Amino acid sequence: MLRLSSLLLRHNRHRCHLTKPFSTTTSSLPLTVPLSHPIYLIWSSNTSLGKTLVSTGLASSSLRSHPRRRRSFLYLKPVQTGFPADSDSRFVFSKLTSLALRHRRLSPHFSLLASNHLLKASASAAASLLAPGAPRIYENGMCHLDWSEERRVAGENSGNDEPSKLVCKTMYAWGDAVSPHLAAERENGAVEDSALLETVQRCLEIGVGKENMDHFCVVETAGGVASPGPSGSLQCDLYRPFRLPAILVGDGRLGGISGTISAYETLKLRGYDVVAVVLEDHGLVNEVPLASYLRNSVPVLVLPPVPQDLSDDLMEWYDDAHNVFDSLMEIMLSAYSERVKRLRDMPKRAVDVFWWPFTQHTFVPEGNVTVIDSRCGENFAVFKNDDAITEQFDACASWWTQGPDATLQTELARDIGYAAARFGHVMFPENVYEPALECAELLLEGVGKDWASRTYFSDNGSTAIEIALKMAFRKFSYDHGLLLESLKDNSTERCPELVVLALNGSYHGDTLGAMEAQAPSCYTGFLQQPWYKGRGFFLDPPTVFLSKNMWNLSLPEGLHSPDLNVKNMTFCSRDDILNKSRDNSDLAVIYSSFISHQLSKFPESKGLIGALIIEPVIHGAGGMHMVDPLFQRVLVNECRNKNIPIIFDEVFTGFWRLGTESAAELLHCFPDIACFGKLITGGTIPLSATLATNAVFDSFIGDSKLKALLHGHSYSAHAIGCTAAAKSIRWFKDSDRNPNISSKGSLLRELWDNKLVYQISSHPGIKRVVVLGTLCAIELQAQGCNAGYGSLYASSLVKQLREDGVYMRPLGNVIYLMCGPCTSPKICNQALRKVYRRLEEFSQSQQN
Amino acid sequence: MLRLSSLLLRHNRHRCHLTKPFSTTTSSLPLTVPLSHPIYLIWSSNTSLGKTLVSTGLASSSLRSHPRRRRSFLYLKPVQTGFPADSDSRFVFSKLTSLALRHRRLSPHFSLLASNHLLKASASAAASLLAPGAPRIYENGMCHLDWSEERRVAGENSGNDEPSKLVCKTMYAWGDAVSPHLAAERENGAVEDSALLETVQRCLEIGVGKENMDHFCVVETAGGVASPGPSGSLQCDLYRPFRLPAILVGDGRLGGISGTISAYETLKLRGYDVVAVVLEDHGLVNEVPLASYLRNSVPVLVLPPVPQDLSDDLMEWYDDAHNVFDSLMEIMLSAYSERVKRLRDMPKRAVDVFWWPFTQHTFVPEGNVTVIDSRCGENFAVFKNDDAITEQFDACASWWTQGPDATLQTELARDIGYAAARFGHVMFPENVYEPALECAELLLEGVGKDWASRTYFSDNGSTAIEIALKMAFRKFSYDHGLLLESLKDNSTERCPELVVLALNGSYHGDTLGAMEAQAPSCYTGFLQQPWYKGRGFFLDPPTVFLSKNMWNLSLPEGLHSPDLNVKNMTFCSRDDILNKSRDNSDLAVIYSSFISHQLSKFPESKGLIGALIIEPVIHGAGGMHMVDPLFQRVLVNECRNKNIPIIFDEVFTGFWRLGTESAAELLHCFPDIACFGKLITGGTIPLSATLATNAVFDSFIGDSKLKALLHGHSYSAHAIGCTAAAKSIRWFKDSDRNPNISSKGSLLRELWDNKLVYQISSHPGIKRVVVLGTLCAIELQAQGCNAGYGSLYASSLVKQLREDGVYMRPLGNVIYLMCGPCTSPKICNQALRKVYRRLEEFSQSQQN
Repeated sequence: MLRLSSLLLRHNRHRCHLTKPFSTTTSSLPLTVPLSHPIYLIWSSNTSLGKTLVSTGLASSSLRSHPRRRRSFLYLKPVQTGFPADSDSRFVFSKLTSLALRHRRLSPHFSLLASNHLLKASASAAASLLAPGAPRIYENGMCHLDWSEERRVAGENSGNDEPSKLVCKTMYAWGDAVSPHLAAERENGAVEDSALLETVQRCLEIGVGKENMDHFCVVETAGGVASPGPSGSLQCDLYRPFRLPAILVGDGRLGGISGTISAYETLKLRGYDVVAVVLEDHGLVNEVPLASYLRNSVPVLVLPPVPQDLSDDLMEWYDDAHNVFDSLMEIMLSAYSERVKRLRDMPKRAVDVFWWPFTQHTFVPEGNVTVIDSRCGENFAVFKNDDAITEQFDACASWWTQGPDATLQTELARDIGYAAARFGHVMFPENVYEPALECAELLLEGVGKDWASRTYFSDNGSTAIEIALKMAFRKFSYDHGLLLESLKDNSTERCPELVVLALNGSYHGDTLGAMEAQAPSCYTGFLQQPWYKGRGFFLDPPTVFLSKNMWNLSLPEGLHSPDLNVKNMTFCSRDDILNKSRDNSDLAVIYSSFISHQLSKFPESKGLIGALIIEPVIHGAGGMHMVDPLFQRVLVNECRNKNIPIIFDEVFTGFWRLGTESAAELLHCFPDIACFGKLITGGTIPLSATLATNAVFDSFIGDSKLKALLHGHSYSAHAIGCTAAAKSIRWFKDSDRNPNISSKGSLLRELWDNKLVYQISSHPGIKRVVVLGTLCAIELQAQGCNAGYGSLYASSLVKQLREDGVYMRPLGNVIYLMCGPCTSPKICNQALRKVYRRLEEFSQSQQN
Repeated sequence: MLRLSSLLLRHNRHRCHLTKPFSTTTSSLPLTVPLSHPIYLIWSSNTSLGKTLVSTGLASSSLRSHPRRRRSFLYLKPVQTGFPADSDSRFVFSKLTSLALRHRRLSPHFSLLASNHLLKASASAAASLLAPGAPRIYENGMCHLDWSEERRVAGENSGNDEPSKLVCKTMYAWGDAVSPHLAAERENGAVEDSALLETVQRCLEIGVGKENMDHFCVVETAGGVASPGPSGSLQCDLYRPFRLPAILVGDGRLGGISGTISAYETLKLRGYDVVAVVLEDHGLVNEVPLASYLRNSVPVLVLPPVPQDLSDDLMEWYDDAHNVFDSLMEIMLSAYSERVKRLRDMPKRAVDVFWWPFTQHTFVPEGNVTVIDSRCGENFAVFKNDDAITEQFDACASWWTQGPDATLQTELARDIGYAAARFGHVMFPENVYEPALECAELLLEGVGKDWASRTYFSDNGSTAIEIALKMAFRKFSYDHGLLLESLKDNSTERCPELVVLALNGSYHGDTLGAMEAQAPSCYTGFLQQPWYKGRGFFLDPPTVFLSKNMWNLSLPEGLHSPDLNVKNMTFCSRDDILNKSRDNSDLAVIYSSFISHQLSKFPESKGLIGALIIEPVIHGAGGMHMVDPLFQRVLVNECRNKNIPIIFDEVFTGFWRLGTESAAELLHCFPDIACFGKLITGGTIPLSATLATNAVFDSFIGDSKLKALLHGHSYSAHAIGCTAAAKSIRWFKDSDRNPNISSKGSLLRELWDNKLVYQISSHPGIKRVVVLGTLCAIELQAQGCNAGYGSLYASSLVKQLREDGVYMRPLGNVIYLMCGPCTSPKICNQALRKVYRRLEEFSQSQQN
C-alpha cells in the first residue's frame, strides 16, 4: 500500500513542504535570570483567554498596594502580531494609567510614571509609527525602532516623591494578526530564537532601572502554550532555557477544562513550574474539576465574567476582580520567596543528609555545593551568587552519561512520560513488550552489528560487567571442558580458579566482581574493598597522546625494543594511529611477541585465563588514557587464537562517545561479549546491556533452569529505559536529527577545533591531550602529590571555569570537556576557548 | 501569610467544595478488547471541532468502498449531553442514510441497513422518547431505554444480498448541553466508570453481529481529551484500560496549533498511540507546524472548510472531503494490520534476540511468550489467543517492584515526564537538586526515622548491598582498630579476612559482593558464580508459617530444646508472632544462647565477623519464608553487643511490601545501615538507597579523598528516579491518596481475606502459607525433584491461572500473589479466589 505516514494530506491535494524541523535553540551566551525580584511567564491554554487582562490586573495590584511604598512593574511582550491594532503592551500601559487616575480618588498620594515601548517591528508594522522618509535600520527584515511613549499620573503633594513606575515593552511586532511564525514569514521579518532570548535577557537585566524599588515583572507569551514563536519553535520550547515560573490563564468555557489541563501538561512536559491557574467565570464551574485534577497543589482562581460590550472600559470589571488579582499577586510573591529560600537553603540541607559518592565530605563545605535548578540540553541552570540562575556548560557531561541537546531532551521527556503511562514497569523474563524488543533489536543492529545475537539487560555498567564475566567464564569452561566436571560435582572445591586478562589502568565498575577484573589501584585497597583480591593478570599497555603538536606513543617498561626508533614512536595525526594498515607494521610484530611472552609467564598455579576484558581505545576512569589501538587489536587476536572469550567494556566508550557508535569500530575487531550503559538512554536514566554472540548464549542452554544464567535485577529491561534508549540510539545516528552525522556517515564530525587543541597540547603547563569524539581531556603538568587521582591540583582552575560558565569535575590532575553526540562544534569551542584562557592564567600562577 | 495554595479562589468569594478526587477506576471484570477488526477512539483537542463529522466520513468511506463486499460499521457514543437536540449517533445515522442514497446513484448495487440506538438516559433526556406513562426502569437515576430506529437503503437487484450495515449507539444521554460530569450531577443520573467501561466492552463484543462482514468500529469521546466523563474522571483516564488506538481531531483555527499539540501530549501522557491527526482547513496552514512537531511520524490530514450555513446538508462537503476520509481510512486500516502483525510477530522476535534473566530458554518456546501491550494499575494488558487484548492481574507485582494503581501510574507518568524535561540527568557529587534532596529527606524521615542520618544513592538492590557491606566493614575496622593498621600499610596482605554473619536462605542480590554475603545455594555454584567463596558465617533460622489454620514455628536442627513444647511452637495469630512482648519468653533465652554458642564456634582462622546482614521478617528470593522475628531481634541485639554493624536488606521488604513502611517496624529494632530499592520508585524505574547512621558516615571522614567511599554509579541519585520515589513515598503513606492507610495509621489494612487464607492453609495440597502486607505466598506440597527452585511443579497451575486473568511467576513449588500498597482488598480477593479454585483442581489432578 501507499506509504502515507510521512505525508501531509490536504483535501485539495496541495502538498505542503515542510521547512526545517523545529528545534529548541540555546543561546550562544550563558543566559542568566535575576532572582532579585519576581519574574513570571504568563501562558494561556488558547488565544484570547485574557492573558493581557491578567497582566494588567497584576500590574494594578502590584503598583497600588501600599501606596507609600515605591514600586515598579515591568511588562514584557516579546512577540506581538496584529500590530498596531493589537498591542498588548499598549493595552497594559493605557489601562494602568486609567486605573491609576481612578485609584487616585481613593489614594490621593499615589503617583505613577508609565511608559510603553516598541523595540523592533516588521516593515509593515513599523510603518504606522515612522514618519515617511525617516531613516530605518533593518536586521533580518526587522526594523530597529526603540519607539516609546510616556504618561505621568501625579498624586497630591507628590512633588518630591519619586512616582511608582510601569514599563511596558513590546520586543518584536508584526502586522498580520496570525501566528508569529506565519507573520514573520509573510512579512519577511525573521527573529532567531537565540536573538529573542538575548533580548528578553537584556530587558530583564535593565528591568525598570536600578532605583531602590520593589520590582515585579511579567513576560507575556503569545497565543497558547505551544503556539509557534517567530522562528517556528514552539513558545514552550523557546523560553525553556529561562524556566521562569508560570501562571496559566485557563479556559472557563465549555471544553475549557480539557484545554486547560492539556496546556498544563504541556508546560509540565517542558519542566515548567505552574504557580497558579486563573480563568474567567463562564458559569460552568470549570474550576472544580481543575482543582481536583491539580489535587489542590496549585491554586485555581476565578475572574468575574468579562463584559461582552467592546466599548466597556473595564474599569468596573477591574474593581470587581481586584480581590482575585490581589490574591494572585500574594500567591506569586509567596511562591517567589519560597523558591529563593529553598534555593538558598539547599546547600545546607544537602551537606546534612547526602552521602555523595567519590566525595570526601570534608572538602565540600556548604559554600562549595552547586545548586542545580534544571538543565536544558548541554547546560545546567545553576543558582549563583545568591541572586541569579545562570547557565553552565555541563563539561562533565553529567559524569559521562549525557547526550541530548535541548530538542532531544524535550522529545525524550515526552517519550519517557508515554512509556511510564503505557507500561510503568512490567516484568521481563518470558515476556515481550515493544520498548524492550525495539531496544534489543536496535542494539544488535547497531553496536552489535555483525557479531552480536543476544541482548541481556541490566541496570548499570557494573552489573553489565558482572554479567559479561559470568558469560565469558561459562563459555570458557564450556570450550575447555571444565563444565562437565563441574556439573558432575557441584562443589566449588575441585573447580579451577579463573582469572581475567586485563590492562593496567582500566576500570570496569564498582561492584566486587567488576572490581576484581581491574588491577590494584587506589580504589582497591583494604580501606575501600576489603574483599578485593585482584583476580586477573594485568598487562601494561602502550598509550598514545597529543603533546607539543605531535601524537606520541609511550611504551611500558618491557616493551622497548631496539627495532623501535623515533619514527615508530610518533604520528602526524590521530587517523594514522587508528589506521588498520598498522597491522603490517614492525610494531604489530613487537606487540604480538610481547603479549605471547607475557602470557607464557603467567603461572597456571594462579589460575586459568578465562576472559580478556578491555575498554576499547580509551581508559576512562583510569585517567582518560588512549591505549594504542593496535596493541588492543593484537591482544584480541592472541586471545581469540587461544579460545579465550573477549569482553569489550563499552560502558564509557559506546554510543558515539569516541565519535563512532561503537568503539569496536575504531579497533577494527569484534568481541564475543560487550557491555553498554551510560549514553545508552541518551543520558537520562540507568539502563545497561550486555551483548553476546549466539555461541556464548548456547553455553547456557540445557535441560535445567540451574544451567541458565541466574543473574537479574528487578527492573531488567524496564520499559521506560528501553524507550529512552530506542529513541536516543535512533536519534544519534540519524543525520536528519543529529547535525554532527553526515548523511551516510558512521563518524561524528570533528567537534573540537583542531588548531586550538594543538595549541593547548604545546602549552608548557600541559603534559598531554587526548581528543576523540565528544571527549577532550587535558593532563596538567604536575609532580608528586599534585599528580594522581587524589590530587586537588586542578581545583582552583576548575573553580575559575565555573565562574566562566563551564562546569568541570577533574580526575586528579586531568581535566576534561565532554559534550553530547549532537552538540554543535560552536558550543564545544566556546568552552574550549575558556579553558585555554584559564589554563594560561593557571600556568602563570603556578610559575609565580 | 494566608495559606492560599489549597483553596479555590473565586471573584465572588463563593467557595466551591470539592467532591472526591478524581481517580481512574479499573473495572472489576478483566476487560477485553477484540482485535478481530479495527476499533478506534476519536478524540479532539476541544469541543465542536468536528469529531462527529470525522466519524461520519469514516463510516461513509468504510461502507462505500468495494460496493460488492459486505461491510459493517459500528459507531459508539458512550456519553452524549444536550440530548435529544444533540445526538451525534443520530447525526451519523441520518447523514449516512442520506449519503447512501446519494451514493446509490453511482453504485446502484449498494444497499445499507442502518440503525440508531439509545441504551440509557437521564429522566429529562429520556422524556422525549418515552410515551407518557410508559414503564421506566431506573438505575442510579439513569433510565433503561434500549430505544432504536432503523432505515434501509436498498440497492438495485439487491433483493438477495445482505446489505452493508451501520449500527449507531448512544450509550448514555443527558439533556443539559454541558460537560457530562455537570449534566450527570444536575440531572441526578450517575454512571460509574466501571459500569461505563463494561457497557463499552459489551457493545464492542456484540459489535454489529456475528455475520461474515468486514467490521470497523469507532468510539467517539465527548468534548476534549481531558474533558470529564459522567463520574468526573477525565475521559483520557476513563478509557485508558482499553488503550484503543486514537485519532485526534485537531484545531485549524488561530491558536489551534497549541491546542492540538497539547491534546496530543495529554494522550501520550496516558500511553495512547495517536495514529493520525485530522483538522479542518481555516486557511492558517496549521498542519505545517503540526507535521513538523510530529516529525512526520504521525500523518496530519486537512479537511475542507465546513460550510458555515447551518441549513447546509453537507452532502457536497462530504463529496469534497471523501479523498481525505479515504486516506484516513487507509491509514487506520494499515495501522491496525501493522499493530496486529507486530503483536503476532513479537514472540518470535523475542526468542530470537532476548536473553532473559533467570530463564532457561529451552523451556520458553515462542508459544509460551507473553506479549504485554501495556499495563494499567495492577493489570497487564496481554495479547491473547491471537485476537484480543485482555487484562491480567500482575500477581508477581512485576517481580516485586510494583506499587501504583491506575491513578498513581498517571500521576507518576506526568511527574516523570516533568523531571525528564526539567533535569534529564545531572551529576550528583558535590551538587544538589530538588528531587534528590526531597527524596533523601523523605527516606530519612520515613524508613530511616529515628536512626538514619545519611542517604547513599545507587541503582539497584545489589549495588545498595555492596555499598552497605563497604560501609559496615569500614565501620567495623574503625571500631576494632583495624583501620590504622591498614592505613599504615596499604597492602592487602596483612589485612584480616572479614566475613558477614547471615542467615541461610537469605538472598541479597546477584553481583559478586552481594552473592558472597549469602550461603551456598543453587545460585552460587561454579556453574553460576566461578568467583563465589561464600564469605560468611551462615546460621539456620527458625521460621513461621500458616498451616491447617494455625501459625507454626519450625526450628532448625540444633535449636531444639527440652524446654520447648507444643505451646511454644504454635500461635493463634500472626500478631502474636510479631508481638514485642515475646522478648520475655523462654524462646528468647533459648535463641540467645543458641546464637552465642554458634558465634563462639566460628573459628577466627576463617576471619572476623565484620557485619550482620539480614532480610527482616521475610526471605524473598529464598522462597518467601517468614523468619521468626524474635530470632532476628535477638540476633541483632547479640551483634550490637559485640559492636558488629547491622545491615537490614529491605530491598524487598521496604515501602509497605509487608504492611509497614519499613519491615524494621515489625522487628522493633533498628539497623546501622539499611538498603532499599524496588518499590522505592513506586515500581517504575531502578533506584536504590543505602541509609546509614552518622556514626557509619563518620568512619569515612578524613583528610584524603582516598578515605571517602569510592563507589558510585553514573546515574547516582538520578533526578527522574528521585522524583518518582518522592511521589510514591508520599503517596503510599497518605491516607487521602491510599485507601489502605488509615488516617493516622502506620499499617496497611488487611488485604487478603482472612477466611480464604485460612481455608487455603488447611488444604491438603498446601504445605504452608505466608501472608503479610501485600504478599500472599503459598507452598505446594511437593516431593523430590518437584520441590525447590528448579522445580517446574507449579507450571500447569500457573498456566491455568493465566487463563483466568492472573499472571504469576512461581518460585519452584512456591506460588505467590503480590499487590501494590494501594490495591483494594476487592481486587486481591478476586485473585485469591481464582487461586483457590485452581488449587482444588490442581490437587485433584495430582491425586489422580
